[in-house]
Amino acid sequence: MTLIYLVRHGLAGQFGEYADDRLRPLTPEGQAKTRRVAERLKGLKVSVEVILTSPYLRALQTAEILLATQIGDRLETADFLEPDYTFESLQTWLTHTTAKSVAIVGHEPNLSNAAAFLTFGQPTDNIQMKKAGVIGIETPAEGEIVGRSTLFWLAPPRLLL
Amino acid sequence: MTLIYLVRHGLAGQFGEYADDRLRPLTPEGQAKTRRVAERLKGLKVSVEVILTSPYLRALQTAEILLATQIGDRLETADFLEPDYTFESLQTWLTHTTAKSVAIVGHEPNLSNAAAFLTFGQPTDNIQMKKAGVIGIETPAEGEIVGRSTLFWLAPPRLLL
Repeated sequence: MTLIYLVRHGLAGQFGEYADDRLRPLTPEGQAKTRRVAERLKGLKVSVEVILTSPYLRALQTAEILLATQIGDRLETADFLEPDYTFESLQTWLTHTTAKSVAIVGHEPNLSNAAAFLTFGQPTDNIQMKKAGVIGIETPAEGEIVGRSTLFWLAPPRLLL
Repeated sequence: MTLIYLVRHGLAGQFGEYADDRLRPLTPEGQAKTRRVAERLKGLKVSVEVILTSPYLRALQTAEILLATQIGDRLETADFLEPDYTFESLQTWLTHTTAKSVAIVGHEPNLSNAAAFLTFGQPTDNIQMKKAGVIGIETPAEGEIVGRSTLFWLAPPRLLL
């Protein structure tokens, strides 16, 4: 059983204004709101063994805010959390990890698709995830995780702050 | 398009302590927490055209708290929200209503099953809904609502308060 907190990166600079989209940073407003979300998660006693993040700057900065807020004390980047990743790599990671809790920081529609896949077995677009929003999922104690996990939170920053 | 807020009744008296389960009331604690949830929803500018509720006392009392908090100013009871209802009746109501927003107060696992059905097309048990918890769903602008609606909130009281 693993508790998974999917966290979408906060508000970032305008797409197209950066030569390399991988280097698009959080805006000051995005940083501030993400920090408040992280503090709320801390208040909710969210504590994870590892913070796994897309290496893109806006995600990495979001993950670093979770780290600084002590949601977790270990940060790892994972190429398969990049915007064009395939869910299978995340599935493999989740299936093999010994971590009982993880925060996964990345992009849309990847994260909500992953949530739909884990929960309902299909990576559909029926879950709405806002920037700096959080999805909580619990995988089953044993066996297949796809289509058998439980969704317990879906919250935009507005609900958390 | 209809905005649907599914609201599970608050903490109620012990099952079995009441000769008629339909008359099992909210506890004082359940009333207080439900009131705080309703006030938070009001703060989030949740406003619905109709509050539809199971006629069971614990649901009706929850709906009356939403009414008193001015989440909506019209309350209707619906037998098909009773614990043993079939989803088809709710589906029919949702398909024919002209209301653009509705709060639906009822029981588990009915509500989370309905959420899964609307969102993913299968009434599975993969969504966890706590007492006095709220699920937000938006039906599509036109066409079939089952399997095509969008989940935008899933929040236990803990997230809302």
